[in-house]
Amino acid sequence: MTPSLSLLTDFYQLTMAYGYWKAGLDQHEAVFHLFFRRPPFQGGFTIAAGLESVVHYIKNYKIETSDLDYLRSLVNSEGAPLFSSDFFDYLKNLRLTCDIDAIPEGTMVFPNEPLVRVRGPLLQCQLLESPLLNLINFPTLIATKAARVCIAAAGDPVFEFGLRRAQGIDGALTATRASYIGGCEGTSNTLAGKLYGIPVRGTHSHSWVMAFNEEQEAFDTFGNHFPDRCSLLVDTYNTIEGVKKAIQTGKRLKKLYGIRLDSGDLAQLSIEARKLLDEAGFKETHIIASNELDEAIISDLKRQGAKISIWGVGTNLVTGKDQKALDGVYKLSAIRKKGEKWRYTLKLSEQMLKISNPGILQVRRFKNETGYFTDVIYDEGNPIEGDCHLIDVWDSTKDFVIGANTPYEDLLQPIFREGKCVYALPPLPSIQLRTKQQLKSFSVNIQRFLNPHQYEVGMEKHIYEEKLQLIKNLRRR
Amino acid sequence: MTPSLSLLTDFYQLTMAYGYWKAGLDQHEAVFHLFFRRPPFQGGFTIAAGLESVVHYIKNYKIETSDLDYLRSLVNSEGAPLFSSDFFDYLKNLRLTCDIDAIPEGTMVFPNEPLVRVRGPLLQCQLLESPLLNLINFPTLIATKAARVCIAAAGDPVFEFGLRRAQGIDGALTATRASYIGGCEGTSNTLAGKLYGIPVRGTHSHSWVMAFNEEQEAFDTFGNHFPDRCSLLVDTYNTIEGVKKAIQTGKRLKKLYGIRLDSGDLAQLSIEARKLLDEAGFKETHIIASNELDEAIISDLKRQGAKISIWGVGTNLVTGKDQKALDGVYKLSAIRKKGEKWRYTLKLSEQMLKISNPGILQVRRFKNETGYFTDVIYDEGNPIEGDCHLIDVWDSTKDFVIGANTPYEDLLQPIFREGKCVYALPPLPSIQLRTKQQLKSFSVNIQRFLNPHQYEVGMEKHIYEEKLQLIKNLRRR
Repeated sequence: MTPSLSLLTDFYQLTMAYGYWKAGLDQHEAVFHLFFRRPPFQGGFTIAAGLESVVHYIKNYKIETSDLDYLRSLVNSEGAPLFSSDFFDYLKNLRLTCDIDAIPEGTMVFPNEPLVRVRGPLLQCQLLESPLLNLINFPTLIATKAARVCIAAAGDPVFEFGLRRAQGIDGALTATRASYIGGCEGTSNTLAGKLYGIPVRGTHSHSWVMAFNEEQEAFDTFGNHFPDRCSLLVDTYNTIEGVKKAIQTGKRLKKLYGIRLDSGDLAQLSIEARKLLDEAGFKETHIIASNELDEAIISDLKRQGAKISIWGVGTNLVTGKDQKALDGVYKLSAIRKKGEKWRYTLKLSEQMLKISNPGILQVRRFKNETGYFTDVIYDEGNPIEGDCHLIDVWDSTKDFVIGANTPYEDLLQPIFREGKCVYALPPLPSIQLRTKQQLKSFSVNIQRFLNPHQYEVGMEKHIYEEKLQLIKNLRRR
Repeated sequence: MTPSLSLLTDFYQLTMAYGYWKAGLDQHEAVFHLFFRRPPFQGGFTIAAGLESVVHYIKNYKIETSDLDYLRSLVNSEGAPLFSSDFFDYLKNLRLTCDIDAIPEGTMVFPNEPLVRVRGPLLQCQLLESPLLNLINFPTLIATKAARVCIAAAGDPVFEFGLRRAQGIDGALTATRASYIGGCEGTSNTLAGKLYGIPVRGTHSHSWVMAFNEEQEAFDTFGNHFPDRCSLLVDTYNTIEGVKKAIQTGKRLKKLYGIRLDSGDLAQLSIEARKLLDEAGFKETHIIASNELDEAIISDLKRQGAKISIWGVGTNLVTGKDQKALDGVYKLSAIRKKGEKWRYTLKLSEQMLKISNPGILQVRRFKNETGYFTDVIYDEGNPIEGDCHLIDVWDSTKDFVIGANTPYEDLLQPIFREGKCVYALPPLPSIQLRTKQQLKSFSVNIQRFLNPHQYEVGMEKHIYEEKLQLIKNLRRR
């Protein structure tokens, strides 16, 4: 791992930075938004995560001498330097002075809503594109996956066991933190325990059993050293025989915290194991299951009456399984020469839904007695006054009015002002709690795995009309 | 990022370590193998990667004071410490003394073949399980994906553009390095360029175009500052109009390196763009394509006659797309009290193919005039002498004999001896070259995307029979 992460950016951000600087656009004031277009996993909701690492990244941003040396070494096909030497003085003295607003971690978010808004000198905003996407896309994906897995577990504890098959060291650590935000009670990743204070769990693997001549000896020895949290993996040789031996160990200890099943027919084996444990008087002993679990398998095991009380979820949680990335993007939405009038911008697309939104955007979330019911994306240049008129983002033939006195929250919070952090990072347990509270504050119908209800997100009428006009102007050219 | 990665391990490795130490098994000599069970992507081959990071991990392994403090802080449900205090003295003084053998990066590997073999004190081998799996599984997955993408590109340069949607910072860096090993010519990830010397590429994004009032002005300005490698992204507003404007810029510069298409119908647009470029005399101008590409889409674009000469592949390369993890595992295969006879071990399973192999294994790869044709997994306790008798790992009714004078290589190389590194890490370009040479040294039929030929991997007869006997004994208990 390198101490300086300032070059953690796509190279085109640097060529553009050079071009902006050469063309005298580097100090133009720009606004970019980071948002995604579809909820992951074909679901109805998304949990924002990753802001803390963004804060650390921005706070520590400094282009080091070694970074400049590297950039200086780059040449074109004729062997000439790519960048002129005065550009390195510029980079050396570069300090981030952007205003950054973001939606706090653990908040429910929906397509097209800006999760992060960056406003500041064009060149700076541009350099931040790739790291912000890297730091937000992945944890948001995994926090959402974890929330889904925890919904499937319906109150049973879920532990994240994904280290060994995660996508890199940081793929593991970041996923562990995001899983905790999404609702997992703990992790197997000891380093994540140390770094983030997340509870760690783990007892023994098959090799513990194989290291002894007899499974019974392996169980008894483990029980001797961990009598209070003795949880025995019973499927090294034969699962049911393993359960019987675990019961023998439990009888000696006069207690048995749990047994773990890691292979085979988890529904049938857990039912048989529960019966054996109950008959032996171990009615409180947990049955822990692992082995390629995800929200669909957990739901199905529950439907089959599996007697599992703790779930260990690994690869499919920390990698996202069927969806490997959130489709977050970062688009320029407004630009001006300092002190002049804003020019709003958008990226065209043949698909109306893929056209980005112009403006300096904020998200207003309205609530009534039963919870949150509609979000509106509006332009701070045209604040909502009185009744809020909005157009559905998915179907422009639908429009609504929300009364002036409806309670609301604006979701984007100030994080940096002129490069200075103005945000107190919440402790991790409070972020997890926020996720839990958020899940309770929306219609439960958005949590369905199949055909979830689509939460209402609209665009405020003024910015919607401005967008339409811009599209027409751009298409006419 | 933390300087100490010694706790990057599943917590059960530490509880087992404590148990082994308490039970007096910590110094038992053990042998573990890291292997996978299926080639990723339903393919016919796999490219080994990740060894360099394993070497760095082992070399830097030291349990720091802060690690011990963290472990000391862990308590059970009654508030009592999990580990007794003398265990921390033991950990504090722990130095790795294992022998480690591994198959070099860039080597073709197949299911059940040990990629890494660890031999040494049981406790040490156990602690290394999770980090080794984390450090090998992911890069091996991505090097293989990259090789597949490069095969589809059929000689056209492929660049890796995955940073923004990679699974974490290290998910990006590690994937970039592995993509290069698999055959990519370069990356967009500037930090990977700095750290690994991988060529970096990138010109501009849509926001460059949007930052100017007119697309033509944006293109001309970019061309002025990068005349030699001027590559213009043409699809911000209307792709074909964008191509025409890029041609105008090219006419002014009297050259044009490339245009890039990032959306829409890449087959049709590239054909139209090629026609316009050729008519304007820009026959050498590259057409670069990006946008959710993978080996299947590239193959299909080629089939349709798309006029694309450089491929930028992002998310689907660095995450593995449909397969998000290699299914690598790490199993105990032999153990003995120091100086005593080995006891060979295996993990049973209801599926014969999931039963692990016992022994102290090595892989012998035989070749003839046309290239490599068969691998044999054998036990170093029973070296191959004379003719080699082997049993097919997938179908035990098939057996073969390979003549005594057949040329071969043994794949596992010494990496550490008694904890000391005895391996010279090859430079990254030579690893990429090795991959290319390996791909040429095997039947091209294993490279097919659909129904690839299954390369012959057998178990040497003695260890196969020993395995059968062990299974019977264990089932009989």
